[in-house]
Amino acid sequence: MEWTNLDQLSSFETLRGEEKVSVQEVMAGENGAARVKKYSVPMASGLTYNYAAKAVNDTVLADLSKLAKEAELSEKFAALYNGEVVNTGEKRLVLHQLTRGQLGDVVTADGVNKREFYVEQQKRIADFANRVHAGEITNEAGEKFTTAVQIGIGGSDLGPRAMYLALENWAKKNGKFKMEAKFISNVDPDDAAAVLASTDVAHALFILVSKSGTTLETLTNQSFVMDALKKAGLNPAKHMIAVTSETSPIAKSDDFLSAFYMDDYIGGRYSSTSAVGGAVLSLAFGPEVFAEFLDGAAAEDKLALETDPLKNAAMLDALIGVYERNVLGYESTAVLPYSQALSRFPAHLQQLDMESNGKSVNRFGEPVDYVTGPVIFGEPGTNGQHSFYQLLHQGKTIVPLQFIGFKNSQIGTDVDIQGSTSQQKLCANVAAQIVAFACGKEDENKNKNFEGGRPSSIIIGDQLTPASLGSLLAHFENKVMFQGFLWNINSFDQEGVQLGKVLAKRVLAHETEGALSVYSELLNI
Amino acid sequence: MEWTNLDQLSSFETLRGEEKVSVQEVMAGENGAARVKKYSVPMASGLTYNYAAKAVNDTVLADLSKLAKEAELSEKFAALYNGEVVNTGEKRLVLHQLTRGQLGDVVTADGVNKREFYVEQQKRIADFANRVHAGEITNEAGEKFTTAVQIGIGGSDLGPRAMYLALENWAKKNGKFKMEAKFISNVDPDDAAAVLASTDVAHALFILVSKSGTTLETLTNQSFVMDALKKAGLNPAKHMIAVTSETSPIAKSDDFLSAFYMDDYIGGRYSSTSAVGGAVLSLAFGPEVFAEFLDGAAAEDKLALETDPLKNAAMLDALIGVYERNVLGYESTAVLPYSQALSRFPAHLQQLDMESNGKSVNRFGEPVDYVTGPVIFGEPGTNGQHSFYQLLHQGKTIVPLQFIGFKNSQIGTDVDIQGSTSQQKLCANVAAQIVAFACGKEDENKNKNFEGGRPSSIIIGDQLTPASLGSLLAHFENKVMFQGFLWNINSFDQEGVQLGKVLAKRVLAHETEGALSVYSELLNI
Repeated sequence: MEWTNLDQLSSFETLRGEEKVSVQEVMAGENGAARVKKYSVPMASGLTYNYAAKAVNDTVLADLSKLAKEAELSEKFAALYNGEVVNTGEKRLVLHQLTRGQLGDVVTADGVNKREFYVEQQKRIADFANRVHAGEITNEAGEKFTTAVQIGIGGSDLGPRAMYLALENWAKKNGKFKMEAKFISNVDPDDAAAVLASTDVAHALFILVSKSGTTLETLTNQSFVMDALKKAGLNPAKHMIAVTSETSPIAKSDDFLSAFYMDDYIGGRYSSTSAVGGAVLSLAFGPEVFAEFLDGAAAEDKLALETDPLKNAAMLDALIGVYERNVLGYESTAVLPYSQALSRFPAHLQQLDMESNGKSVNRFGEPVDYVTGPVIFGEPGTNGQHSFYQLLHQGKTIVPLQFIGFKNSQIGTDVDIQGSTSQQKLCANVAAQIVAFACGKEDENKNKNFEGGRPSSIIIGDQLTPASLGSLLAHFENKVMFQGFLWNINSFDQEGVQLGKVLAKRVLAHETEGALSVYSELLNI
Repeated sequence: MEWTNLDQLSSFETLRGEEKVSVQEVMAGENGAARVKKYSVPMASGLTYNYAAKAVNDTVLADLSKLAKEAELSEKFAALYNGEVVNTGEKRLVLHQLTRGQLGDVVTADGVNKREFYVEQQKRIADFANRVHAGEITNEAGEKFTTAVQIGIGGSDLGPRAMYLALENWAKKNGKFKMEAKFISNVDPDDAAAVLASTDVAHALFILVSKSGTTLETLTNQSFVMDALKKAGLNPAKHMIAVTSETSPIAKSDDFLSAFYMDDYIGGRYSSTSAVGGAVLSLAFGPEVFAEFLDGAAAEDKLALETDPLKNAAMLDALIGVYERNVLGYESTAVLPYSQALSRFPAHLQQLDMESNGKSVNRFGEPVDYVTGPVIFGEPGTNGQHSFYQLLHQGKTIVPLQFIGFKNSQIGTDVDIQGSTSQQKLCANVAAQIVAFACGKEDENKNKNFEGGRPSSIIIGDQLTPASLGSLLAHFENKVMFQGFLWNINSFDQEGVQLGKVLAKRVLAHETEGALSVYSELLNI
């Protein structure tokens, strides 16, 4: 297996030389209809990835297949799930897929079978959550806990929060809702203060999440919460659990009712299917719902083993994304879920993608001469239509679009207005947007002219459920992973976050000079 | 006054020819410290705009001043606030500044003095809100309303929601909190269903907001809410008010307790200081708080009258942004408020900026040969640091950054950990980030190397209050307006949203063909 820079691959040179596809032309008329039927890949949990409105044709797709082969994407994925040290920067294995299934060899690290380790933690969490729900684990007054409050930042916040919001209404509708969950993340004291003010702390169970046990924001917010509990006459140790690595300073602390473990082989942004997501989601919705979510992710992971990208949605999505970034030159991508439940899913993907692939050096630490990960942003449709879509339709910048849509709502309450339900209107809008972006519409009044040629893909599902959410999450994790392989970068470290931390410590220690000193004064530190 | 394309201005040619400034070099050492002290413009409500970490020097600034003069920015602003038809696409006046103050001549339209009209609506809202708070306007059982629920989308949602969240904790801390506010926006039926399920509808007052009275999502959600009220045995007409234009079909409807008016001269994304923001904010926090917010905006508008950009923060911010976009070639901008209360402020600016300036034709409908508005995205710091900052620090793409920070928190509850409060940690982080982005840090290990040269500016305030929030909002509105003048585009229409609406209607009427027909099938419409 060779780890080669993208611009050293001959199939990439071929790809660059191909004639560009006009999305507007190929999506017109009956040819467009045929494309929509043909350019589609089944995913797990009833999802489908449709890429008809992307700037590709059979020639480009053949090149992308060659690129996948030359870049040895499947071999690299196999190396990862079989336990090679793919995270070269931190010299670590990359095992998040193992939290939801065994894709290849038994992986042993730190002297243990890692799949068994993750399953064991999941079982411990399930048991703990069941005992909380049964009223066997209670507050000191013997009363049931009614709220779970996750304290964490970055991957300990964005993913779990997005997943909680994605399933909250589904769980309520389907009798699976056990406890409300809340989240404290920011070191801004108003974040913790506001959450605590709206929480019945006497019946709240806090989940402290920090892999290293040293994250400044999280430890600060832990103290903030412990202060509040003490002021309410409560014993913090009876109201708090930890999710951390076994080697962290908080792993064996008496400050917690219990501790559940992850490890260094799960990056924060890939940790929603580990104990980091497991504790809060199992408490909120019950362990069975979390298990269905894991099963959905595992099923999607299995599909990512397929070596033919035309049958592997994550791999194809990755390849098309690299084509858009490195050949067509598009700099950002908008994630547009037509589902209010996915309101924070774009924020999670923003971290997943930008923190993984926002790199300038290859996995050997050598600068690369091509662009890497795009800027990711997004909001739910139809809200975005009434906001930034103006620029997407008529701006000078082309932004590739990732739509997500479901045939059915989660709650099922609806109204029929002007002959259609809200759910039908929602779906009609996403269908209309894809075609509007792709095909445009000529108008003599140039202010009302739509050039079209704005590429998009859509993932369509029956309903957003624990399983389809798991599949959706795994799809994007695997897409980002394949793109990292294509760019020959390490998608699993994040050295770019370090300098800010170092300088912030200096400011707090009043060891500043130059510009930093003046900014510190201006901010009254 | 001449409306000229940017690339026809000789000062723009001069600007393009200047030697580029290395942010890394100029921000180093004592020169950097001097810059931070010098490159600063006072704003209203105690705010300061500091642009030391931008890629400018005195030469570039002198060019920008010439550009401001040649582009006649102050004259164009004067034309706008004196009531010329600046919105050429829709042939309308642009009067949002008039909702908070009189900047120039008396403006008469539709036979009335428009300042008096806006003040009258504000007084009517204040009176209504006071009577609700006093228990004089109640539900049919004579009980007080406890929750206000805004039904609106786009500008009727994003701005008011961001402002509500920005002031919620401040109001609670300062005894100004009157009623909780909630928001229903998306046509996704789960949005309305979830908000209604968590709302005591018997004590809820709904605010239907649609300028035209024809917005599909909003009218659908109105029906959704009316259904829910009827099912609860309540009379919808006793639970709903309207904010709309006097000429809209809902203006005189019996479906509402009362109606408050805006007009065609206030674009949705500029409507937070009109009745659109006024009703919900006055109900939530009392009319006095809304008045302080307006005063803050009015004070900032007055500063935007200054003709010297070095003394006019909005104008300078606009000029630097155009320099970054059209000379340095940066495509997106991140908005990074170090304040959890501003969690949705970036989403509001995303609409404000991208819907205003995401255009390809000038104000005469002629295609322009230069790029216009950037992609805008952002999340609150420090959360973003643990998410997408990796790409911002070490990615291949340079993204200009707009920081916002406050010396004091809103609630004031804090903890001292390792010798500093959370608020100090928050401020230390934003100071550290500016310098880390600007100066970088060399490392032999290229994976740990920070190139620096990432430009940013920061707006610093004492505290986020109604007044400083108003000033902050007006700053960005005026910045976007000045940029529209520089690009010679119409920042006040949004023709780019039309095509999607037309096609969605066709889908719902089953009048589709080609690709649209197949997408409709796939989405089960």
